[in-house]
Amino acid sequence: MKPLILVTNDDGINARGINALVEAVCPLGDVVVVAPDGPRSAQSNAITVNTPLRIWKHFEKDGLSMFRCNGTPADCVKIGLYRVLDRKPDVVVSGINHGSNSSISVIYSGTMGAVFEACIEGIPAAGFSLCSFDPRADFSEAINYSAMITKKILDEGLPKDVCLNVNIPECGHIKGMKISRQCYGRWQERFVLREDPAGNNYFWLTGDFTDHEPDAEDTDEAVMRSGFVSVVPCRVDMTDYEAVKSLQSWNYDAETL
Amino acid sequence: MKPLILVTNDDGINARGINALVEAVCPLGDVVVVAPDGPRSAQSNAITVNTPLRIWKHFEKDGLSMFRCNGTPADCVKIGLYRVLDRKPDVVVSGINHGSNSSISVIYSGTMGAVFEACIEGIPAAGFSLCSFDPRADFSEAINYSAMITKKILDEGLPKDVCLNVNIPECGHIKGMKISRQCYGRWQERFVLREDPAGNNYFWLTGDFTDHEPDAEDTDEAVMRSGFVSVVPCRVDMTDYEAVKSLQSWNYDAETL
Repeated sequence: MKPLILVTNDDGINARGINALVEAVCPLGDVVVVAPDGPRSAQSNAITVNTPLRIWKHFEKDGLSMFRCNGTPADCVKIGLYRVLDRKPDVVVSGINHGSNSSISVIYSGTMGAVFEACIEGIPAAGFSLCSFDPRADFSEAINYSAMITKKILDEGLPKDVCLNVNIPECGHIKGMKISRQCYGRWQERFVLREDPAGNNYFWLTGDFTDHEPDAEDTDEAVMRSGFVSVVPCRVDMTDYEAVKSLQSWNYDAETL
Repeated sequence: MKPLILVTNDDGINARGINALVEAVCPLGDVVVVAPDGPRSAQSNAITVNTPLRIWKHFEKDGLSMFRCNGTPADCVKIGLYRVLDRKPDVVVSGINHGSNSSISVIYSGTMGAVFEACIEGIPAAGFSLCSFDPRADFSEAINYSAMITKKILDEGLPKDVCLNVNIPECGHIKGMKISRQCYGRWQERFVLREDPAGNNYFWLTGDFTDHEPDAEDTDEAVMRSGFVSVVPCRVDMTDYEAVKSLQSWNYDAETL
């Protein structure tokens, strides 16, 4: 039996990037796409609990089935696993996102939300992002690396409870691929003020990313600056184990006082 | 100058829990609330990038200012910091959530999304959740522990880049408080199928939580089962450092091949 590959994204089923990812992984197995019906950027691990989910057949041809869903990327993985597929997929891939999901962006990313959802379900998964916001961005190198990494996951697996955040720099000649770690950095927010025709204020959220450890060489940001594809192994355990030790004095037993 | 305390939640500004949290922290400093204008459960770290944000003065009396926002919990923290407050708050508290955010729920939780947002901004933060879905749940113990923990954070601080996920069992007599770690578990999804009047299918996402390490004693689930408040120190670095080491063989240099 050919490997079963579930594909999703957060830019929506009509985005260029998901078609690029389908092109990358179709030679590797049977491909089913379950993706949002429109853009769901920055949806993180959000799931839909207060409104109903719907799913529609979008396209079917030559062994490729595509479904669109009115939910978030994480919803797409859940409904894909439990209501679309008839067996557990061998890998879940998400993207190719149009824009970087390196550093702290991993925590806001809907692309990575889908990947974390698959990881929670015990399925090897990777998110792919092309670090360009140019609508005419060249996806060809991103397709090559997405295919190579997906094949490597199918052949070798991933460590238990580990998923991958893959960021691909946009440059003419990529030098290779490096395992890296999440860069310590953050978005410096700006809220752009506008006034609507009725005279009420509203805000657009925007901002600039700052790398807080620009001299480090092993971060996803540094690896991309040096021309390599960055691969960060991620986990869904948010516990800070150092702090579990250092905060033991906070333990408090009401009955022995 | 009195400590400045920013309060938010994901159940919305009219929820019982946020009023309980305001009651808990008002004696500790100046309190400003910036909370969603309605329920935003399971919004994770989602932020609003494709639609504009609005914010309204909701209530102001006796040194308490409340604002409501049409965004997510993480949006509320961002806009609170950059457009509402005139100085950096000493602590950000979120909740009191009506329902548990222990184990893997931390990754879907809007309550904790707000806490992670504050943590990214370098502000000590804690999310408080009462483990009851009963609309008449008794918040009194949760108020006591939220006040005690917020005071402890103001007095002693938290380790750098660490925030707290506090879950409070609903029981008549809480035995105390224990530092714990995120339980390994997940939601087993069910999609309940319904048909709308036009004959189209839709689904409600629901499910049951399974603890995958029921014999462990140091998890948030176990600590709560034994009658204690669980405090999990969390971080926003998703990197799995063990896997960074074990996957070094994936490094690939295109130029040396």
